[in-house]
This record gives sequence, C-alpha cells and structure tokens, in this order.
Amino acid sequence: MKTYRKELWFNVPTRRAFVNITPEVQSCLRDSGVKEGLVLVNAMHISASVFINDDERGLHADFTRWLEQLAPHEPVRQWRHNDTGEDNADSHIKRQIMGREVVVAITDGKLDFGPWEQIFYGEFDGRRRKRVLVKIIGE
Amino acid sequence: MKTYRKELWFNVPTRRAFVNITPEVQSCLRDSGVKEGLVLVNAMHISASVFINDDERGLHADFTRWLEQLAPHEPVRQWRHNDTGEDNADSHIKRQIMGREVVVAITDGKLDFGPWEQIFYGEFDGRRRKRVLVKIIGE
Amino acid sequence: MKTYRKELWFNVPTRRAFVNITPEVQSCLRDSGVKEGLVLVNAMHISASVFINDDERGLHADFTRWLEQLAPHEPVRQWRHNDTGEDNADSHIKRQIMGREVVVAITDGKLDFGPWEQIFYGEFDGRRRKRVLVKIIGE
Repeated sequence: MKTYRKELWFNVPTRRAFVNITPEVQSCLRDSGVKEGLVLVNAMHISASVFINDDERGLHADFTRWLEQLAPHEPVRQWRHNDTGEDNADSHIKRQIMGREVVVAITDGKLDFGPWEQIFYGEFDGRRRKRVLVKIIGE
Repeated sequence: MKTYRKELWFNVPTRRAFVNITPEVQSCLRDSGVKEGLVLVNAMHISASVFINDDERGLHADFTRWLEQLAPHEPVRQWRHNDTGEDNADSHIKRQIMGREVVVAITDGKLDFGPWEQIFYGEFDGRRRKRVLVKIIGE
Repeated sequence: MKTYRKELWFNVPTRRAFVNITPEVQSCLRDSGVKEGLVLVNAMHISASVFINDDERGLHADFTRWLEQLAPHEPVRQWRHNDTGEDNADSHIKRQIMGREVVVAITDGKLDFGPWEQIFYGEFDGRRRKRVLVKIIGE
C-alpha cells in the first residue's frame, strides 16, 4: 500500500471565499503515483470546509447569501462562542453545513469524477494562513 | 489490496426522490470479494446526494418538506445560479445539506451497519439519467 | 493491509449532548498499530452524528440552539415520521445537518489533525444505549 500526504496552504484576503483546489489535488495524485485507491481532502481548521460542487460564480453567490441567512455573522453577540472574545461562531456553523472533508475515488490514476464535480476550499473566517490536508492511500 | 468500481445508474421520473440503494451496494460488495476495508458511495452529479438514514416514508416526506423550506425551488429567479438559464440552483444547495457521499466500513464481507442504517440516493433534479459511484478498497 | 474495528458505547442521560471522543479514537489507533492509513468514525444510529469541530462549551450551546431553530423537536406532530409513534423525527434531521461520519488521516501513527480539531459524538435522541463504529485501515 502506498500513502501520500501534502498540506495545501491558503491566505484568503477576505472573510469568506470559495477556492477551486481541484488542480492542486490532481497534482498531489500525480506525485503520489497511486493508480487505485482513495483520496481524503479535509480542512485542517474548524472554520473552513472542503466540498464538491459546481464551479459557477452565481452558485457561489447563492451559497454565500444562503449561509449568511442560516447562520448570520452579525450581530456577533447572538452566539455564545463569541463570549470567548472570538467573532467567528458563525464560521464554525457554516463549515458544519458545507462539510469538513471529501473522499474521492482514484481509478486509473485519476480522480474518478462525474461531469461537473470540482473540489472547493470554503473559507468562512479568512485573512490568515490556513491549511487543507490531502491524504492518499492505494496502490 | 483489492479495488472494485461500479456505477449505479438512475432515471428518476420526478424532480425529487429518495431511492434505497443498499441492496445494490451489497451486491457490489459481494462481487468485489473484499472482506475487510472501506466502501465509498458518492453521487457523481452535483445536484444529488448519497446519505444514510431511515427507510421510512414519513421521514422522507419530512426531509422533502424541510429541504424545500430551507432552499425553495420557487421562485427560480431568487438564485443567481439560475441566471445561467438553469432552474436547479436549489438542488445544488439541497445536495449540500444532505451530503455527497458516505464511507462505510466492511467487516467479514458485510456492510458494518447499525440496526437501521440504509443507504439512499437523494435526487433533487431528476427526470434524466444520473449516476452513483461505488468504490471499494480492502482485502 | 491491517484493519481494526471497535464499537464505542454511549448512554447519554439527556436527549441531546456533544461528547468529545477524541481520546477513545486515539486509543483505538494505538491498539491498531496502524502508522499510515485512514480511520472512519461513524454513528451506527440514524439519530446521532459524528463530527469534528471545537471543544468549546459556548459553541456547543450555539449548535444546540441553532439546530433546534432549524428542526424543532416541538410540536412533535409537525413531522410525519412521528405518526409512526416515534417522537424523534427532529433527531434524524439534526443528524443529517451535523453529519454521520468523519474520515481522518493517520500519519506516523497519529490522527493527522489541525490545531483545534476534536471528534464529537452528537446525540440528538439519547437516554438509551447507542454506538459509534471506529474502523481503521492501513499499514
């Protein structure tokens, strides 16, 4: 069994953003030499997500507006987590909706994807350095 | 290490439906010959889900009504994604809530399930041919 | 390839609770002897979750209040699932939001975690014995 590990680093200049990381994961897969197996891609921070959906700007605007309605940043005092001095309680909740991780099949050395699947890093509390883990196991 | 791959095809006649695919995944597992490992089951389309919950009609009605309240299909103009000419923005969001994939343990050649766990394909934009991927790794 | 399996048992005295199970999963990992691979941790019941987030009491209070707004327990008659005689429809929905499972990378014999990641059992219909499955594969 082969294994491979790499951290992808981000420093998103805004509080919220969606970044397509499919090319970086494909590059990891090539470096790993794994032809058959699984790749786990997960946020290493608990105020960020990794998820698979469409690379379409309008949909990302919809996600942003909809998440803000479901778990608003303001007023920050509505969340008990922010009593600790933080202001990012909403980002912990948004990440829970969008998910921590994806597991993708590897077949013939490629990400085994449907026609529109793309992997995104979802940042909900940016403006600092944060990481995603890529872990590959297989043969 | 053994690996196994199969696509399950669906053509749900309605926009929305929940389909119990546990028997198909069990059949894949038997074909694979894997006794110990993991099975990944994921929607290959970004407007559909794979998830594990109860096979109970009332609960599925609850899911449908609740998802429609959270991310309504109508009016379609409320979503920027639909400016592209699509009308399925809500289905991308519903799939995000219900999840893309499940990973299930394989023990003694069986899905290692609790008493009520069943695997469902969740369709949110049906009336066309769509796919689920089953990928098994193990020994 | 090595595999390892263990059930963690819970009997939460309240309807809802979040239990940090990171030490138990780390103990499983040590017992397994696996140095490189993946660990799957999943609820075996469909009214409970396993998820990764912050071990902070205020955030857990936020999760509890926010989930109750999204999918209220009362009135129980609002949910068709409860027509079966159950009163736990809301717990099936809450578990869907918070997730069934996590998959965590194993590197150098340790859970490959970012600085604040902790694994939680999320109980939404407690006051009885329920289980979490830990399945490890690797070398």
